[in-house]
Amino acid sequence: MAYPVPTYSLYDTLALVQEARIVHCPLGADFELPLDALADARANLTIVCSPNSPSGTSTPTRSLGALAKRLDGRLLVIDEAYADFAGENALGLVRRYRNVVVLRTMSKSYSLAGMRLGLCFAHPPVIDALLKVKDSYNLSRLALAAGAEALRDSGWMRRNVAKVIRTRGVTEARLRKLGFLVPPSQANFVLARMPGRDMAPVARGLRRAGVLVRHFPTPLLQDALRISIGTPAEMAALFKALEPLVRATPSKSKRRIRT
Amino acid sequence: MAYPVPTYSLYDTLALVQEARIVHCPLGADFELPLDALADARANLTIVCSPNSPSGTSTPTRSLGALAKRLDGRLLVIDEAYADFAGENALGLVRRYRNVVVLRTMSKSYSLAGMRLGLCFAHPPVIDALLKVKDSYNLSRLALAAGAEALRDSGWMRRNVAKVIRTRGVTEARLRKLGFLVPPSQANFVLARMPGRDMAPVARGLRRAGVLVRHFPTPLLQDALRISIGTPAEMAALFKALEPLVRATPSKSKRRIRT
Repeated sequence: MAYPVPTYSLYDTLALVQEARIVHCPLGADFELPLDALADARANLTIVCSPNSPSGTSTPTRSLGALAKRLDGRLLVIDEAYADFAGENALGLVRRYRNVVVLRTMSKSYSLAGMRLGLCFAHPPVIDALLKVKDSYNLSRLALAAGAEALRDSGWMRRNVAKVIRTRGVTEARLRKLGFLVPPSQANFVLARMPGRDMAPVARGLRRAGVLVRHFPTPLLQDALRISIGTPAEMAALFKALEPLVRATPSKSKRRIRT
Repeated sequence: MAYPVPTYSLYDTLALVQEARIVHCPLGADFELPLDALADARANLTIVCSPNSPSGTSTPTRSLGALAKRLDGRLLVIDEAYADFAGENALGLVRRYRNVVVLRTMSKSYSLAGMRLGLCFAHPPVIDALLKVKDSYNLSRLALAAGAEALRDSGWMRRNVAKVIRTRGVTEARLRKLGFLVPPSQANFVLARMPGRDMAPVARGLRRAGVLVRHFPTPLLQDALRISIGTPAEMAALFKALEPLVRATPSKSKRRIRT
């Protein structure tokens, strides 16, 4: 298996459970797709999360199509968990490339995380192979009913997404004003960085104030917070707690960004 | 993997998906546990369904304990999907043997098949190993809530079971009167046999009358029908359709049973 990193951390767990060999291909400085590295890895299964977690950035469909072509029949799974919050999506590639699998979830834009439901789009032979090994009884009747009804009400989903996108823009601007670097998000969260400054104390301070954000204690991401977009009131609570924490111990790198 | 046959047919499917080697150990003429054959197979995983499907017969806990001991640390999974309908169960063996795993389901006695919920009882190291590989998000919130509430209302389950057991006794007696051999059932279904007579035409006739029973087109079971216990009214509908079908083409073996 091959995939760009940093990305959704569960891929590593699931690959290890299957005893797969894993090839990590680093994303570019602005989280660009490492197209050559992924193509050259020639993995049986390549995964690209787009929009990506935790960066929030998305890969242009054109690049995903080019990757699908260069993988020459090997499976390319595009994890579009956050696609409803993005400007474009790669669903059209499923028609053009027999090796493309697009995954969606009802946990984000449909707010149905508790139902544990997802969707998979791929050519019939791929779906047939998946059906062979999937558990016969993997979804409850209530989850199926909830999912079918949710799909019939995509208007609700679009209004929900519009609210999140509006709040996301306000949040990005305010975080940048505070001195954070924020790559333009296409998801329902933002990644806020202060290069070189460990954000673990800030994450702990937010937690004490009852605000839960994600901090990854890894070399690549320790200077970042991943912040989910909530309601305007929830974001106000975030900033009320965040501002004094950020100002408390200004670092060199923070000052450098401000000048 | 090793298990007695005939038994729940999904074991074969799931074992093949995992590319496991399978050892089938035939049950005795009255569906007794092939204790020696199972112990001698020395499989990493031995499964005994008790009460067994499709026979409805159950294995004494004493025999299961003897098997657990002889397996000498190798896992023994006792599938107790139907245990609530039986006179005894093997849950106590989990305390006595570190290699025993007992499985239950909420699809039968709790009537919650649509929730797709089961329970697993085993020593903590076995549970820890299972948690390592299980899907992180394998149950919906609604299924979990339904399961927790159902367990709090085990009185409902016991009343449900009492009704099924009462109807099961009446059904067994009436089937025997019609000429069927019916091993004493400890489950929520009965196996009705007419040795040597193919039951496929009878199953088809019942289906035309809107009564769905299970016929297995295998050498061992083609002379049998597995009939679920329904309400008294449903069982009356069964017998109304079944009696003319059975009388239509009396076979030698049927006449032999009657004499």
